[in-house]
Amino acid sequence: MHFNELDTPAVIVDLDIMERNMQRLAAYCREHSVALRPHTKTHKIPELAKLQIQYGACGITVAKVSEARVMRDAGIDDILIAYPIVAQHKARELAHLAANTKITVSLDSLEAAQSISLSAAERAVRVGILVEVDVGLHRCGVGSAEDAVALARKILIQPNLDFRGIMFYPGHMMAPVARQRELLTPVNQFMDEVYAAFARAGIPIQVVSGGSTPTAFLSAEFHGLTEIRPGMYPFYDRNMVGAEVVPVESCALSVVVTVVSTAVSGRVILDGGSKTFSSDRFLAGHGRGFGMVVQDPAAEFEAMSEEHGHLSVAASKRAYRLGERLQIIPNHVCTTINMHERIYGVRGGQVEVSWPVAGHGKLQ
Amino acid sequence: MHFNELDTPAVIVDLDIMERNMQRLAAYCREHSVALRPHTKTHKIPELAKLQIQYGACGITVAKVSEARVMRDAGIDDILIAYPIVAQHKARELAHLAANTKITVSLDSLEAAQSISLSAAERAVRVGILVEVDVGLHRCGVGSAEDAVALARKILIQPNLDFRGIMFYPGHMMAPVARQRELLTPVNQFMDEVYAAFARAGIPIQVVSGGSTPTAFLSAEFHGLTEIRPGMYPFYDRNMVGAEVVPVESCALSVVVTVVSTAVSGRVILDGGSKTFSSDRFLAGHGRGFGMVVQDPAAEFEAMSEEHGHLSVAASKRAYRLGERLQIIPNHVCTTINMHERIYGVRGGQVEVSWPVAGHGKLQ
Repeated sequence: MHFNELDTPAVIVDLDIMERNMQRLAAYCREHSVALRPHTKTHKIPELAKLQIQYGACGITVAKVSEARVMRDAGIDDILIAYPIVAQHKARELAHLAANTKITVSLDSLEAAQSISLSAAERAVRVGILVEVDVGLHRCGVGSAEDAVALARKILIQPNLDFRGIMFYPGHMMAPVARQRELLTPVNQFMDEVYAAFARAGIPIQVVSGGSTPTAFLSAEFHGLTEIRPGMYPFYDRNMVGAEVVPVESCALSVVVTVVSTAVSGRVILDGGSKTFSSDRFLAGHGRGFGMVVQDPAAEFEAMSEEHGHLSVAASKRAYRLGERLQIIPNHVCTTINMHERIYGVRGGQVEVSWPVAGHGKLQ
Repeated sequence: MHFNELDTPAVIVDLDIMERNMQRLAAYCREHSVALRPHTKTHKIPELAKLQIQYGACGITVAKVSEARVMRDAGIDDILIAYPIVAQHKARELAHLAANTKITVSLDSLEAAQSISLSAAERAVRVGILVEVDVGLHRCGVGSAEDAVALARKILIQPNLDFRGIMFYPGHMMAPVARQRELLTPVNQFMDEVYAAFARAGIPIQVVSGGSTPTAFLSAEFHGLTEIRPGMYPFYDRNMVGAEVVPVESCALSVVVTVVSTAVSGRVILDGGSKTFSSDRFLAGHGRGFGMVVQDPAAEFEAMSEEHGHLSVAASKRAYRLGERLQIIPNHVCTTINMHERIYGVRGGQVEVSWPVAGHGKLQ
């Protein structure tokens, strides 16, 4: 079946581009001896996680315990939950998963460590721990080398926890490469302090987990990095193009939509809005628009209702007709896939495979 | 079970407030002889749709054919699909539903009418049609009384279609009541032209479907209105409070979240972000923030990642501790419920009922 026969809106992935994207980063990681642990919150699809492992990933990253369960149930046995687990019933579920899976969790508080330790001891399992440090995003993570060492010391004496190392997320570095290099200097200075403090304290660090899709090909320039957790790199999106991370030709994912109204002059209405694309904004330049129309770069995806996409075609030279299909590259691929129950893999225009988004709606 | 024992993030609905909201609008509609046809895209939950009908609604509205199927399968037999159905396979599905359900569709093009007519004729069913007119939002809808009459004439001669009347959506009127009254004048002038043109053409209009939650209690002042399609009125949200539609005490729905990190000074991190709340913006005043913290109006919900909510607590007098629960009233209730597989009904703090969001992910 050609993808234009799918009922719309439908998310399609160009398999040739996706496989190239996966291979390219896997090759970079091999070359630079950095482990690749993809963040599967981007797609929440076990089949794609397994493909990433097949291409050389050492395991996966997830954001939530419920996502970890979906991936574990599909047979993936090395999972980092890059999220502070504070509530006791999440810790119990975590310990349950750790019975037959290598589970590692990042955290920035003693309370989280104690909660996990308690549940792990109850079930007689071990859980790996990374101490999260804040390298500039100011979201989670302890803010100094001393605090990181102090927390690691406390983790070392908690029952059933294995302190494995350090985690950070350089989420403030989404920018063109030249600007990334400027932002990297203080990150490296901070991490050097962390390494020195751990060395002084005599606490060995096995893992330094960092990285993200925008900074993935800069990984070799991060001091001491042993693994990265990029999510978006199989697909990329309009934000990654806007930040000059990749050219538009690297975007593997688009949303197929149908023109459902042309009644209002200068506008074309599509059958996908915020419930199809998410409302995530364009993070680069002028900040406008909710996606890029593959067939007409002059069209501006200027507004959305829940189920309507509003194209301004005032500047377009193209004629639009009711019922025709368009492809839109979304601003943010992670939140777009998350809106869908199923996505489709396409090669040469033909639908080759469809994957349920098994982790769709898994929020706990 | 108390709602604070639910795993978080969890959407809870205060049943007392919700029932009061439902009753209040139903009473207004009875008093003013306007039919109430709630838009169930807000919750996508058949049990709540049936409760709305029990309180006096004449039937329901949905946005997509797939939502109509969910509601029809749950036994609801009078459904308006307030969305232009253009693709032939959606028209076939529609005709299938019309075999044992009263189905009405709004549209603004002959192409949509022809597509539905063809499928309806194939299955020997009848589908009701409303012509959508544009009263100011400039999204869908024909722009003049003459165009509306011309389209109605063409619908009247299409096999298996029943022209029932006119639909409009006053989505540009979300504002405090005084401003709504100013915006209403041109809407009424336009609709008077429409009514006059249909009268001159000798085409009877049975249904004039308008309304929305922000304008619901102004319905009696819309000329010629026979039914309204409000969605959010059982719950309301921060945007409805911001537009002075209701006081915050009328908000029935909140998201229970857990504090998962306090490591960064001046910030508190919650276990819900854009995948829990959606990224929908605050549409009133300063436009900032992603929700209102029930326990601390001085906290600003200033940013979100996919799974992290970022509270700025710089102006707060409250101490926050790891693991504690907070309730957040979201900006937009429709897109928030849509992120969840299940929501919970609470009375006096106790969870009384839980509903699967049966239409969750239904986008086609």
